[in-house]
Amino acid sequence: MLELRDRDGLSRICRFKTRRNTVDTPNLLPVINPNLLLITPKEMVEEFGIQALITNSYIIKKNDDLRERALQSGLHDLLDFDGTIMTDSGTFQSHIYGEVPLDPLEIIEFQKTVGSDIGTILDIFTEPEDKHDKASKDLDITLERAKMSVEAKGDMLLAGTIQGGVFNDLREISAKESSKLDIDLFPIGGVVPLMEKQHYATLVDVVMSSKKHLDPGIPVHLFGCGHPLIFSLAALMGCDLFDSAAYAKFANKGRMMFPDGTRFLDELQALPCECPVCSSHTVQELKEAGPDKEKLLARHNLHVSFAEIRRVRQAIVEGHLWEFTETRCRNHPSLMEAFKRLAKYRDDLERYEPLSRDLAFLHNSSLSHQRPTISRFKKRMIQRYDQPDKPIYVIFPESNKPYSRTHVDNIKNAVALGDVHFWVDSYFGPVPIELDEAYPLAQSMTPDRLEGAILKEKDDLLKEFSEKYFKGQGIYWEGQETLDNIAFLSSEPGNFDLDMLRVRAVADLQFGKGSADILFQGQVTFKKSRKTGKIRNVMVDGDHILSMRAGDGFFTLKPSGARLLHKALPGPKLRVIVDKETAAFNQDGLNVFAKFVIDADPELIPGDEVLVVDEDDKLVACGRTNMIRNELISFKAGIGIKVRDGIEPE
Amino acid sequence: MLELRDRDGLSRICRFKTRRNTVDTPNLLPVINPNLLLITPKEMVEEFGIQALITNSYIIKKNDDLRERALQSGLHDLLDFDGTIMTDSGTFQSHIYGEVPLDPLEIIEFQKTVGSDIGTILDIFTEPEDKHDKASKDLDITLERAKMSVEAKGDMLLAGTIQGGVFNDLREISAKESSKLDIDLFPIGGVVPLMEKQHYATLVDVVMSSKKHLDPGIPVHLFGCGHPLIFSLAALMGCDLFDSAAYAKFANKGRMMFPDGTRFLDELQALPCECPVCSSHTVQELKEAGPDKEKLLARHNLHVSFAEIRRVRQAIVEGHLWEFTETRCRNHPSLMEAFKRLAKYRDDLERYEPLSRDLAFLHNSSLSHQRPTISRFKKRMIQRYDQPDKPIYVIFPESNKPYSRTHVDNIKNAVALGDVHFWVDSYFGPVPIELDEAYPLAQSMTPDRLEGAILKEKDDLLKEFSEKYFKGQGIYWEGQETLDNIAFLSSEPGNFDLDMLRVRAVADLQFGKGSADILFQGQVTFKKSRKTGKIRNVMVDGDHILSMRAGDGFFTLKPSGARLLHKALPGPKLRVIVDKETAAFNQDGLNVFAKFVIDADPELIPGDEVLVVDEDDKLVACGRTNMIRNELISFKAGIGIKVRDGIEPE
Repeated sequence: MLELRDRDGLSRICRFKTRRNTVDTPNLLPVINPNLLLITPKEMVEEFGIQALITNSYIIKKNDDLRERALQSGLHDLLDFDGTIMTDSGTFQSHIYGEVPLDPLEIIEFQKTVGSDIGTILDIFTEPEDKHDKASKDLDITLERAKMSVEAKGDMLLAGTIQGGVFNDLREISAKESSKLDIDLFPIGGVVPLMEKQHYATLVDVVMSSKKHLDPGIPVHLFGCGHPLIFSLAALMGCDLFDSAAYAKFANKGRMMFPDGTRFLDELQALPCECPVCSSHTVQELKEAGPDKEKLLARHNLHVSFAEIRRVRQAIVEGHLWEFTETRCRNHPSLMEAFKRLAKYRDDLERYEPLSRDLAFLHNSSLSHQRPTISRFKKRMIQRYDQPDKPIYVIFPESNKPYSRTHVDNIKNAVALGDVHFWVDSYFGPVPIELDEAYPLAQSMTPDRLEGAILKEKDDLLKEFSEKYFKGQGIYWEGQETLDNIAFLSSEPGNFDLDMLRVRAVADLQFGKGSADILFQGQVTFKKSRKTGKIRNVMVDGDHILSMRAGDGFFTLKPSGARLLHKALPGPKLRVIVDKETAAFNQDGLNVFAKFVIDADPELIPGDEVLVVDEDDKLVACGRTNMIRNELISFKAGIGIKVRDGIEPE
Repeated sequence: MLELRDRDGLSRICRFKTRRNTVDTPNLLPVINPNLLLITPKEMVEEFGIQALITNSYIIKKNDDLRERALQSGLHDLLDFDGTIMTDSGTFQSHIYGEVPLDPLEIIEFQKTVGSDIGTILDIFTEPEDKHDKASKDLDITLERAKMSVEAKGDMLLAGTIQGGVFNDLREISAKESSKLDIDLFPIGGVVPLMEKQHYATLVDVVMSSKKHLDPGIPVHLFGCGHPLIFSLAALMGCDLFDSAAYAKFANKGRMMFPDGTRFLDELQALPCECPVCSSHTVQELKEAGPDKEKLLARHNLHVSFAEIRRVRQAIVEGHLWEFTETRCRNHPSLMEAFKRLAKYRDDLERYEPLSRDLAFLHNSSLSHQRPTISRFKKRMIQRYDQPDKPIYVIFPESNKPYSRTHVDNIKNAVALGDVHFWVDSYFGPVPIELDEAYPLAQSMTPDRLEGAILKEKDDLLKEFSEKYFKGQGIYWEGQETLDNIAFLSSEPGNFDLDMLRVRAVADLQFGKGSADILFQGQVTFKKSRKTGKIRNVMVDGDHILSMRAGDGFFTLKPSGARLLHKALPGPKLRVIVDKETAAFNQDGLNVFAKFVIDADPELIPGDEVLVVDEDDKLVACGRTNMIRNELISFKAGIGIKVRDGIEPE
C-alpha cells in the first residue's frame, strides 16, 4: 500500500507498506547475491539503514544448499534480514545466459514458499535490438503470465514487470494492461542494456511511455538502475524504487561510483568524496588496502548511492528536483540528451506539476524555460486569462536584474496618458501586469546577463503569444518609440485599477475563465499588508471571500468564496466528490483521505483550491488538493485534500 | 617554496613547503579560534588530516592568558598542533569592529615571537563601498607596511595581502608592487563582504585582476573563502589556499554546508550527504542531538569542505576543472553570473591553458564554447594556420553525433571533382579537414541535438572565420547546393594528399607559421598505425623527425626535427634557455628544473614542445614544457621541462 507524503511533479516521496515494514521511497534495494555476501544484509542495516533488499529466487532455487535452507527456514532467516525482501524471478538471467529452465507458476510458488515479501513474475526480457513483432509477441506472453501470477500470488505482493522493448506503443499497452490487474509493484524491465550503453534518451522514452499509463497508486521500480548518476532523472520521471548490484560489481573491478560518474580507483590522485571510507583513508592507503579493498569500495559505492537517494528526497521536498537533475545531467553529453528528451513529455510532466513551490524559481541555464512550471503558467494563461480589448503596451523593466516592481511606478506615470493595457517583459516573455505577483513571476532569481538562448527563447515566446493571444493587436515596446510618439497614448486618460485587474486575473487563472465575474459581484474591497502594500484579503459587500497568499500570489478560498463558485460553476468544476458518510467528517473540518474520493475535476493540479462535495453535489468543505484526479481515485492511503474549512449549509 | 605538480589552466596542484611540513594545494586552512575550540587541532589532524591551520595573532595578543601562554611556550604548543600555523594580523577585526589599536611592526614582531610559520602584514581592509580615492590611499599604506614587514620578517614566511577594493587598476598596482617584494604568500583580501552578499561576479573581477599580475611562483590565498560551493571557482582562477571559519560559524547557527549551497538542519527532511556524520545519523537523530549538535554540524561542514578540496584536486588532475566549476555554478544564478564573467578574462586564462588534455572534451552546455581550450585552438589557428589559396568547400558530417571520421569517405569521393580546399563543420565551427585529428576536435563528446546557443555560436564562428580568414573566398555548404551545381567543382581534378596536408598544418599550428616549410624539405614518408591507419612517425629523407601522438593528434619532436627547427628559427622561438652548467645535465637526458631556467619563448604554453638551449643558443635537448615563460622564470622548485632526448652536437 502506497501513501503519498510529498511531491515535485511526477517525483514523489511515499511510504510503501509491506507486511514486514514501511519502505520510504525513493529508495534503493541493494542486490544480495546469496552466493557472495560481500557485505551482509545485517551490516547493511547497521551501516546504511536499509529497509529492503532484492535477491534472486532463481539463483537460490537452482543451488541445492541455498534452496534447502530457504525452503526449511525461509528467506529472511537465510539472509539474516527482517526487512522487506523482494525477489527477482530469473528473467534477468535469461537476458544474460539465454533461456532458463523455469515454469512461470513454479517460480511464483517458490517465491511464496520461501517467504518473499514481493515476488516477481517471470516476464520475457525484451532486448533493445528486438524488432516490434518479436517484442509484441513476447509482451503478450508477459501479460499472460502476469494474469496467471496474480491468480497465484496469495498474500505475497506481486511485481508485474513492464516490457515492450524500445517501442512506446508496446510500453503503453504493457502499462495499461498491467494496471488492470491486481499488481502491487511495477518494475520497468528490459532497460539494463540501455543504461549500460548510455542510451539515456531512449531510457527516457521507455520510462515515460510506461509511467504515464500506469496506475499512479502503485509504486514503480526501475529494474537494474543502480548508478547514483541517474537516480534523480529516474525519480523525476516518477520512479520510486531502484536496485543496485553495481555497488558490488563495480567494486570488484576497482571502480568507484560518484554522483557525477564512475572512476577507477587506480586513476585517482585524490578521493573526491566525503563518505566514511574516503574520509578515513588517503587515496594511497585505499589503493594499497589489499584484500580489504573490494569491500571498502563496495561500502563507498553504497554510501554514495544512499546519500544520493537522500539528496533526491530532499530535492523533492524543496521542489527543486528538476534543477537538481539538470545539474547531474550536465556531467555527460548523453545525459544532457536524455534531459532534453524530457521536453517531448512536457504535457505529461506538467499534468502533475504543483501550482507553486515554496522556494524561488532559479534560472540557471538556457534550459530553465523548459521546466514544467513555465509551460504550466503559459498554458493556464492562454486558456484562462481574459485579455481586455485594448491596445497593449509592453514595458521593459529598467534592468535585467531579478524581476522587480520598480516598473510599477513607471506605469503609474504612463497610465495617465491613455486607456491601454499594460504587459511587462519578464524572463518568461511578456505577461500582463496584473499577473506579476503570481508564481513563478515574482519568485524568480535570474542571472544579470541573459544568455543568447534565453533571448532567443524570449523572442519565441513573444511570437507565440502574439499569434495565439494578441490577435493582431499592436505591440509597443518601451524604448522602441518614445512615449509621446505613440499616438494612442495621447488620447483620453484611462481607468487603471491595478488591484481590481489583479484579483480578477488571478481568479480566472486559478479557478477558470469566468470565475472573476462570479466572485466579484458587488462592492469589492481589499485588506492590504501594512508592510508590503500587497493585497491580503478580498471582501465582496463586506464578506471575506478570498485571501491572497504572500508566498505565491495565488488565492486561498474562504467558505463564502467557495459558496459563490459552487453555486455558479457546474460539476465537476473544482469538485472533489466524496461519499456521504465521510462528507460529514469533512464538514467538521477533517481532511479528505484519498480512499474516500469517488471522483474529481480532471483539470485539477496539485495545489489547486477545491470544493469538497458529496455525491449530490452538496458543498461540505473547501481546501487544497495534494493530488490530481487519477491519483485521488487510485490511492488507498494518505491525505488527498487538506481541508481548510468545513462548510455548513446556508 | 612552491613546487608545481600538475595543472589545468590557471588552477594547479602544488606542494608548498614551510619549515614545519609540506602543504598540498589547493588546500583549506581551518580557522582556529583559540577562545573557542569546538574541534581541536589534534582532532582535525586525526579526522581530516589537516596540514595547516590559521589563527588570529591579534586575538591571542589582546587576551592576557593566551598571550602569556603563546609567548612562553609558542603557538604550536598553545594549539597542540605541529603542522603549519598561519596567523592573521587583526586586519579582519578592523573590518568588523572598526579600527584596532595595533602597530604594524609590533604585530609582525609578535607573530615571529610566538612562532607563527606564516605571519600576515597589518594591511588596510578596503570595503567594497570605499571610493577609488580612499581605496588608493589605503593601498599606499598597505604597500608601505608590506615593505616594512618584509624587512622585519626574519625567518618567518610573510603573507602580504593584496588590496584595492573593487577597482581593477588598484588590484593591479597592489599585485605588481607586492610581487616586487620578498613576500611568501599573497592573500587576496577585502573579499569577505563580496562573498557574504553573493557578489561573485565582482569577486571574479577582483581575483582575476589581482592574480594576473602576481608572481606565479608564490602561492595565492583567498582570504575568508570558506564555502565549498566556491572552492572550484577560486581554484580555477589560480587560488591555492582557502580558510574557513564558516564550518564553525554555520554550525553554531544550525546551518550545514553542501557543495551546492547551505541549508538549515531544521529545514531538512533527509540528510543529502555521505559524510560520516550524515551516514551515521538519521535527520531526526541529528535534529535531536542536543548539546552535541553543534560539533556534529561542524564536523559535517569540514568533511564536505575537505571532500570538495579533493574533488577540486582530482578535477585538476583530470583536466576537467572548468566543467566541474560550471556544474557547481549552475546551482545559483549569482554564481552563473560569476562563471560568465570569466569570459572577460578569456585571454588571461588561455595563456595558461595546456595544449591538450588526456580526457575527452565534453560539450555539456551552451557555455562549453567559452572554454579556454576553444579560444586557444581558434587563436592558434588564426595566427598560425596557412590557408591554401583555393576555394573552400565546407562539409557537414552526416549526423550531429560525436564528431566522427565518416565524412572522410565523402570527401574522398568529392575530391575527384575539383581542386578545392575542404573544411569540415564541427561543434567548434568549420575547421580545415587536415586539423580534424588535433585536440580538441577528435576528442569531443557532444549531445545529439544542438542547443540554440551552440548553433548561434557556430554562426558567429563562421562569420568570424569568414572575415578574418576566408578573405572573401566562396564558402559552399553541402546540402545548400548539390555537388554538380557548384561550378568550380566541375573543373580539373585536384591534388589531395590529406597526410601531407595534415602534417604540414599540425606542424604550423604547433611550432608556428612556416615550420612546415622548415621541417619537410626532402622526401617525406610516414609510418602508420596498422590498427587505425593514422600517422605515427614522420620521416624526411629517411630521418625520423616527428611522432604524432594518438591521444591529441599533436607532434612529439625528435632530435632530428629539433635540430631543423633550431637551425631555421631565430631565438627565442621555441627556446628554453638554461645556464651552461646545467645544460650538460640536460644533454644527458635529465629534466630541466625550473630554477635553472634563465629565459624562454614568451609564446610557449603548457604542453608545447621546446628546444632546450644554453646561453649561447647551443641546442642541448628537446622536450615538453609544463610551464609558460613567467612561471619558468619564477618557480624555484620542481620540473619545468620534461626532457625527452638529450641532443649532442652534430
